[in-house]
Amino acid sequence: MYIPTFADMLVAHERIKPHIHRTPVLTSSYINELVGAELFFKCENLQKAGAFKARGASNAVFGLSDEEAAKGVATHSSGNHGTCLSYAAGRRGIPCTVVMPRTAPQAKKDAVRGYGGRVVECEPSTSSREAVFAEVVAETGAEFVHPYNDARVIAGQGTCSKELIEQVPGLDAVTAPIGGGGMVSGTCLTLSNLAPGIKIYAAEPDQADDAARSFRAGHIIADDAPETVADGLKVPLKDLTWHFVSNHVTDILTCSEQEIVDAMKLIWKRMKIVMEPSSAVPLATILRNKETFAGKRVGVIITGGNVDLDKLPWQSN
Amino acid sequence: MYIPTFADMLVAHERIKPHIHRTPVLTSSYINELVGAELFFKCENLQKAGAFKARGASNAVFGLSDEEAAKGVATHSSGNHGTCLSYAAGRRGIPCTVVMPRTAPQAKKDAVRGYGGRVVECEPSTSSREAVFAEVVAETGAEFVHPYNDARVIAGQGTCSKELIEQVPGLDAVTAPIGGGGMVSGTCLTLSNLAPGIKIYAAEPDQADDAARSFRAGHIIADDAPETVADGLKVPLKDLTWHFVSNHVTDILTCSEQEIVDAMKLIWKRMKIVMEPSSAVPLATILRNKETFAGKRVGVIITGGNVDLDKLPWQSN
Repeated sequence: MYIPTFADMLVAHERIKPHIHRTPVLTSSYINELVGAELFFKCENLQKAGAFKARGASNAVFGLSDEEAAKGVATHSSGNHGTCLSYAAGRRGIPCTVVMPRTAPQAKKDAVRGYGGRVVECEPSTSSREAVFAEVVAETGAEFVHPYNDARVIAGQGTCSKELIEQVPGLDAVTAPIGGGGMVSGTCLTLSNLAPGIKIYAAEPDQADDAARSFRAGHIIADDAPETVADGLKVPLKDLTWHFVSNHVTDILTCSEQEIVDAMKLIWKRMKIVMEPSSAVPLATILRNKETFAGKRVGVIITGGNVDLDKLPWQSN
Repeated sequence: MYIPTFADMLVAHERIKPHIHRTPVLTSSYINELVGAELFFKCENLQKAGAFKARGASNAVFGLSDEEAAKGVATHSSGNHGTCLSYAAGRRGIPCTVVMPRTAPQAKKDAVRGYGGRVVECEPSTSSREAVFAEVVAETGAEFVHPYNDARVIAGQGTCSKELIEQVPGLDAVTAPIGGGGMVSGTCLTLSNLAPGIKIYAAEPDQADDAARSFRAGHIIADDAPETVADGLKVPLKDLTWHFVSNHVTDILTCSEQEIVDAMKLIWKRMKIVMEPSSAVPLATILRNKETFAGKRVGVIITGGNVDLDKLPWQSN
């Protein structure tokens, strides 16, 4: 297991700069008053392809040798990683294949294809996904880029908090949602080197709190099929992300489904940005744990903005 | 009739800087490809109180002498101007009264009150509004700040395109929605002095095209009660805004209701920002008139983000 280094993150940032936005940091006086802290929202929903995953995917794609790149890249993901890998591959002009259950939303398949990637469908089971993915790799020789348990991906995600601390001096804490732990691992990698005094909080739905339980147990606990509106956060930790989470995270806080939806609507309404349910989880946990953040300067990573505008979660309530 | 000068706009910018955001300019590669031009979206939906009207209202409020200010300010508006005047008055710690039809949406009344302003209800007719407003002014001695036909307000709105051309060099054109013409007049004031080569396009719904018809007729034509999803754009031009529109606007372009809703959804989906139907009108007119903008660098003013998240226009389709 190769653990990405601080130098890898710095190299990643130079490598991906032409392919990503240095996303803005937004604030809301209203939300600050509500929380009793100063929150600085790092808006990765405004990132290329609509999610921070454009960072890790771009680092993986542009770090390949020409020979490797010619065979293309492949992944299995029905979320933002598939779209972002397709985006990055499209920028380099190389093939990208994304294996997705045939039951995945049409919009997700369209998003991959929109950047030039190829979608290969599997049955909605782990065994089918693994079998189909193995075929794709055997056939193409493509480089597998895992959504999060990948040193190149984690180094890429780490560039987000590097920008954040350049944009906002004097932060006391940073918080980000945790699913597989790619963003949180990148945050740990960067902050433990550049600003070890900054506390790192991971935020998770009560209904998919496997990372919080892992954190308390001291080993990875993976749930079978958690159900939450924060659909980017259903996947489990893996060895590489567990390394960072177990060594550098201050705490993992959780919140209810209703708190997620309320925080999401609050951000849309007051900050005028479109973001995913997963991205609302940090604010939901801050609102539940105000005393932890009282008077502090807190960076909050808004991880993505790819949401179905025809089916907003507060409208099905 | 006092016509605001370029110097008034410069004074306004210094005066209001502590009270407004220098809003970011966002771009979308996807929309640029679709249009065949380079669009630069000046995001006043991210402005204080959610609309560019915080600029003009702040200029009016902070330009008052202490003696005038003590009596407060008043206006009639069921839209963003009422909210923004309340915001600015709250920042100065002076009273603000907004006369609104009792039928206005509860959210609009709440928004005024949220910043500390007082709402006085009238019947939904011009005669009732005028009578009630006269009573308020007689009783309080408050300074009337008109939503747009006011030199202080126009000078304030002009600060938006000053920032825009500082943020984006080499623009060929700027486009903004037109209702009463406050933002377009401010844009004319600034650009005619700072960058007279930049073309100015006003954008209007087909169903409320009184400004376009006025522009072609050479005199103000006011409609009775136009119906459009772009509810910020129903009001007519007045003498002061007509002065700027008739002298400096390049053209007024129009679009259909469906084109407005489609452009609004396109911006939400691709740019991940929450904005009002009125703010989508410029992009809708650009999409209808691609040849006019082909290959050009175009500033597009996103005027506001105050929208009912429970009732989005594409969901009633």
